[in-house]
Amino acid sequence: MKAIVIHAAHDLKIEDQEAAVPADGEVAVAIGSGGICGSDLHYYHQGGFGTVRLKEPMILGHEVAGTITALGAGVSALAVGDRVAVSPSCPCGSCKYCDRQLFNHCLNMRFYGSAMPFPHIQGAFRQNLIALASQCHKLDDDTPTSHGAVAEPLAVTLHACNRAGDMHGKSVLVTGCGPIGALAILAARHKGAAKITATDIEDTALDRANALGADAVINTRTNLEALEPLKAGKGTFDVMLEASGSEIALRQGLDVLRPRGVLVQLGLGGDISIPQNTIVAKEIDLRGTFRFHEEFSEAVTAINSGAIDVASLITHEFVLEDAVAAFEMASDRSQAMKVQIKF
Amino acid sequence: MKAIVIHAAHDLKIEDQEAAVPADGEVAVAIGSGGICGSDLHYYHQGGFGTVRLKEPMILGHEVAGTITALGAGVSALAVGDRVAVSPSCPCGSCKYCDRQLFNHCLNMRFYGSAMPFPHIQGAFRQNLIALASQCHKLDDDTPTSHGAVAEPLAVTLHACNRAGDMHGKSVLVTGCGPIGALAILAARHKGAAKITATDIEDTALDRANALGADAVINTRTNLEALEPLKAGKGTFDVMLEASGSEIALRQGLDVLRPRGVLVQLGLGGDISIPQNTIVAKEIDLRGTFRFHEEFSEAVTAINSGAIDVASLITHEFVLEDAVAAFEMASDRSQAMKVQIKF
Amino acid sequence: MKAIVIHAAHDLKIEDQEAAVPADGEVAVAIGSGGICGSDLHYYHQGGFGTVRLKEPMILGHEVAGTITALGAGVSALAVGDRVAVSPSCPCGSCKYCDRQLFNHCLNMRFYGSAMPFPHIQGAFRQNLIALASQCHKLDDDTPTSHGAVAEPLAVTLHACNRAGDMHGKSVLVTGCGPIGALAILAARHKGAAKITATDIEDTALDRANALGADAVINTRTNLEALEPLKAGKGTFDVMLEASGSEIALRQGLDVLRPRGVLVQLGLGGDISIPQNTIVAKEIDLRGTFRFHEEFSEAVTAINSGAIDVASLITHEFVLEDAVAAFEMASDRSQAMKVQIKF
Amino acid sequence: MKAIVIHAAHDLKIEDQEAAVPADGEVAVAIGSGGICGSDLHYYHQGGFGTVRLKEPMILGHEVAGTITALGAGVSALAVGDRVAVSPSCPCGSCKYCDRQLFNHCLNMRFYGSAMPFPHIQGAFRQNLIALASQCHKLDDDTPTSHGAVAEPLAVTLHACNRAGDMHGKSVLVTGCGPIGALAILAARHKGAAKITATDIEDTALDRANALGADAVINTRTNLEALEPLKAGKGTFDVMLEASGSEIALRQGLDVLRPRGVLVQLGLGGDISIPQNTIVAKEIDLRGTFRFHEEFSEAVTAINSGAIDVASLITHEFVLEDAVAAFEMASDRSQAMKVQIKF
Repeated sequence: MKAIVIHAAHDLKIEDQEAAVPADGEVAVAIGSGGICGSDLHYYHQGGFGTVRLKEPMILGHEVAGTITALGAGVSALAVGDRVAVSPSCPCGSCKYCDRQLFNHCLNMRFYGSAMPFPHIQGAFRQNLIALASQCHKLDDDTPTSHGAVAEPLAVTLHACNRAGDMHGKSVLVTGCGPIGALAILAARHKGAAKITATDIEDTALDRANALGADAVINTRTNLEALEPLKAGKGTFDVMLEASGSEIALRQGLDVLRPRGVLVQLGLGGDISIPQNTIVAKEIDLRGTFRFHEEFSEAVTAINSGAIDVASLITHEFVLEDAVAAFEMASDRSQAMKVQIKF
Repeated sequence: MKAIVIHAAHDLKIEDQEAAVPADGEVAVAIGSGGICGSDLHYYHQGGFGTVRLKEPMILGHEVAGTITALGAGVSALAVGDRVAVSPSCPCGSCKYCDRQLFNHCLNMRFYGSAMPFPHIQGAFRQNLIALASQCHKLDDDTPTSHGAVAEPLAVTLHACNRAGDMHGKSVLVTGCGPIGALAILAARHKGAAKITATDIEDTALDRANALGADAVINTRTNLEALEPLKAGKGTFDVMLEASGSEIALRQGLDVLRPRGVLVQLGLGGDISIPQNTIVAKEIDLRGTFRFHEEFSEAVTAINSGAIDVASLITHEFVLEDAVAAFEMASDRSQAMKVQIKF
Repeated sequence: MKAIVIHAAHDLKIEDQEAAVPADGEVAVAIGSGGICGSDLHYYHQGGFGTVRLKEPMILGHEVAGTITALGAGVSALAVGDRVAVSPSCPCGSCKYCDRQLFNHCLNMRFYGSAMPFPHIQGAFRQNLIALASQCHKLDDDTPTSHGAVAEPLAVTLHACNRAGDMHGKSVLVTGCGPIGALAILAARHKGAAKITATDIEDTALDRANALGADAVINTRTNLEALEPLKAGKGTFDVMLEASGSEIALRQGLDVLRPRGVLVQLGLGGDISIPQNTIVAKEIDLRGTFRFHEEFSEAVTAINSGAIDVASLITHEFVLEDAVAAFEMASDRSQAMKVQIKF
Repeated sequence: MKAIVIHAAHDLKIEDQEAAVPADGEVAVAIGSGGICGSDLHYYHQGGFGTVRLKEPMILGHEVAGTITALGAGVSALAVGDRVAVSPSCPCGSCKYCDRQLFNHCLNMRFYGSAMPFPHIQGAFRQNLIALASQCHKLDDDTPTSHGAVAEPLAVTLHACNRAGDMHGKSVLVTGCGPIGALAILAARHKGAAKITATDIEDTALDRANALGADAVINTRTNLEALEPLKAGKGTFDVMLEASGSEIALRQGLDVLRPRGVLVQLGLGGDISIPQNTIVAKEIDLRGTFRFHEEFSEAVTAINSGAIDVASLITHEFVLEDAVAAFEMASDRSQAMKVQIKF
């Protein structure tokens, strides 16, 4: 089988590897679609991020869906031929965080395509993936595999909404309209947000936000003054989903969040400077959000039922042989939203 | 009547002012004890803090208790002679935040001794204070007025604990052992904290923390390595009460908080730098806390019943005439915890 | 001014009384519309209910809206000519339950038209009502007074929904489609319920439920077997709003609620028999709900904005002189939903 | 190996059965101690309860601890010789309730010694028990096996406390002081209850409640008037743990619970009559509680650490051969609290 392997920054190869067979409780999945994520791009461009660095070749990818080709012993809930979205998250189930049901904080987490532990956890961009049956969530007959491969980033944003608490009737600010910000708009609407305002510094991103159902969009580079009236009465928004990782966006948001507003930090960055007095005087809740757990199933259900329509997010599809071109396109924010590879 | 009036930085005067009479629903209180707070010291030393600046002479003080000397019409729950702790907080009851019962975020808040609005809200360091009956909470016969004057800062820390959520059985880190940090130790214990660890950079402050019941103390200037084992397994503490306002303390705490830990920010500072990746990957909740509302009554109840013993916090008492000396002593962290003035 | 006074069962008189003038903080309201509630009917037909009995003549009514005709001293947020919905609820603000912000459980509650305390609290069916300014909530220019008079029962059902917890995306069963059940359908939808099923034993009531937006209706007298499939897998519904007061309806609901489902009891009755084993084995939450507090303001906001359209609930209007006819019509469930009197 | 098998009411036999060997992920446990529970007594005296009836011989028992004698493949966290408490609860992990992490409501639950499904789930009163490794929780070296066998009923009461919400500082009423009520006193104290009042109709039970740390006890048969002052101001208790299954106790409790009080129903009975008006007017939360999930681990931790001392609950121990005598003693409330069998 072929796999997409990163050796070092800008050293991406399509390699032949031996296909494994499923053990007890496992299945083999012929991957159909795989979406390129921001962390894949970090490995591709910089060989890692922060202190996480490639120390050995690693198969990339963790947003995948495909068709089951073989079952290990004891698997009864799935059948050969089932099309499934595969959750990349495989917690150990027995560490102190799993005991508390904080599975996304598992001390022994195996998450596809991650160079955090060594040996690295090999990723899912391969023609034959071995997964636990419990990682596989069935797609309906009329749900394309490409949509199934969006379950993972959608689960990230559903988890972010769950971190924010009850969204029903809330006024929500989404800062940053890349793939995660765009999915955050869909997730917030799904959770009952009454009014969603999106900001970005690119009009093309804001056009997409509009098309996905944002009630208002603001370009904070060209139209910063549009935030002014939203600061009235100590602020306007109940919830902010920060999907840009930008200190500027975060600080702008603090000015328009109301007292006791909740700011959920999705985007990743390094050190950022925040105004302590604002956090204190407005009693802001700044909450990090990291991956997901039960939300993967929630995402697949919403995609299957059509409650969340992810079709318009997939802007480009490439064949496996053109993987490098796919990574280059995914790096161009002015053109691409979600880029997928067909296996 | 005499009042303690700040005119500018280091320009504190004891002045004669005309005593007012209580209107409908109000009472007159002969103040007995008044505690000096950090914000009083900011006015005394710098004439304000941040953008809040003295623009006219202002009576200082908001931690007070005394004896009722006269009743306005319609006051039936109080009697002349009652000794009371007076809450400095007087929300309007009709703005959008009062409607949501977020009284501490009232848009028209009147809080004694604050230069935030103009005209400034005159403070409570005076021999005759007019207050709404609803601001006055009765002290028991055997509760000294000096203890009653600690109800306000105690309410601040009880509110911080309430912001942290259920404290029972939790492992709590208190960073900064000034008067607020010290009261935070008492409040956290009262709320059921199982283990309290306190940090500071002064051994005298840590000795006091020990005496108040902290289970462990760490001097983070001389013994920083003591934090190392607490970082194991992604961190140890369930809750952190940050009472120093120091960026260093906040960042040290982020390393020893467990995933989904709650960091309540009490201390005040300007811009601080925080590691966004830690907030995200550990899903930290960083929550501001500001003043209090229903916790004032909770504080008076706990002081009356002896459930919280604040006696040892009051390290110095001065007579009204020595107010300047009192402010100087209150500024000396190596000697003073809570300094009070007798009126 | 004229008032509708109940002297004993079936002894309802329209009497002339002297109009009062507003004291400090109060206003005078010329009542425009008043809705007849189930408790008004209990006084009219039986002279009370349970242990609550008329001991002196009492003005009925607590669902009213009108126009301000005079202001007491110190009232600035309202003006003569403002049209307002008047909350009948006036808690003391200083008992132990008000202290805990459980205002609807105030030990000294004054609630219009209640024979619970003696002397009775006189009601609001009168041409000139004196109320605290804080009881009065402004209606928009295009909101009829008759709609404003529905704010009170709507607040009851919004409070019931708040007692149920987060409603977004939930499957909700409403048992009993009288005026309160009908408003419960509107309130549950407003709170984000995904699917609402209504039951009653009268088809006319179910037709109204349908018209108000129920997704499914079941006549449990003629079509009880329709509940069978809903019992599958330990039950179907997340939330049940019990608005019939009927033991049969409550027990039917217990069979179709899922484990950890929430049953909010709105309807009033005497002793009822419940299956303890079902409550235990399914870990049902059976929660009483009583009146409202902050939900009155929420109701007026929703009526003003059109977010909740109460027009179709008002089935009959009578002039003051025909009050007895109005009470008779309100007693006929086959014809009437909400009957109002014009003053 | 020998097992205690019930064939019909009063037909209890000690039988020889073939010992099984552990499969993958399983272990074999030589049971040391087994506690007799109320449901065991129901099978012994009546051959079942309600609609649950013996249809084939069944090994009784689900409160057990013992020593591991063999490991199946893939078990690494346990070793032969480890002493463990064995949770009787084995949810399927894949039904809709397990998906929602409501494991105690699993549609395919396997719970030792239950005649609810057919074939019945055989129990744990046997010399060699096969269990999943994940059901086994290690005992400390100085924790007797007999204490470990109390983990199960303790978990039941810890779950009841969790169903009640935050217990810290609360005033708690425990009605019924049999083994479950007695453990509920220990659990409530562990969860931070400030004041615990226990009621029963037997002085011997109340003497034990006293010894276990109840702050006050009331014999509601001989001293019913002691409840009168507790009804003042609409009631006194924040939380009630109903462990008697008695309608009289439940109704007495409703009168002394405060508005918004929480009544957790532990005890089991058939139909009971409750006053609907009290539930509504006081907005009582009546919550069922059923078995446990994560609380088993919490119970073992508390027993290991000594945070909860269960020694005094074990009033009698019998050898396996005297099983019938053990069941007879366990049926005598005037003598026995918890009766255990040594295997």
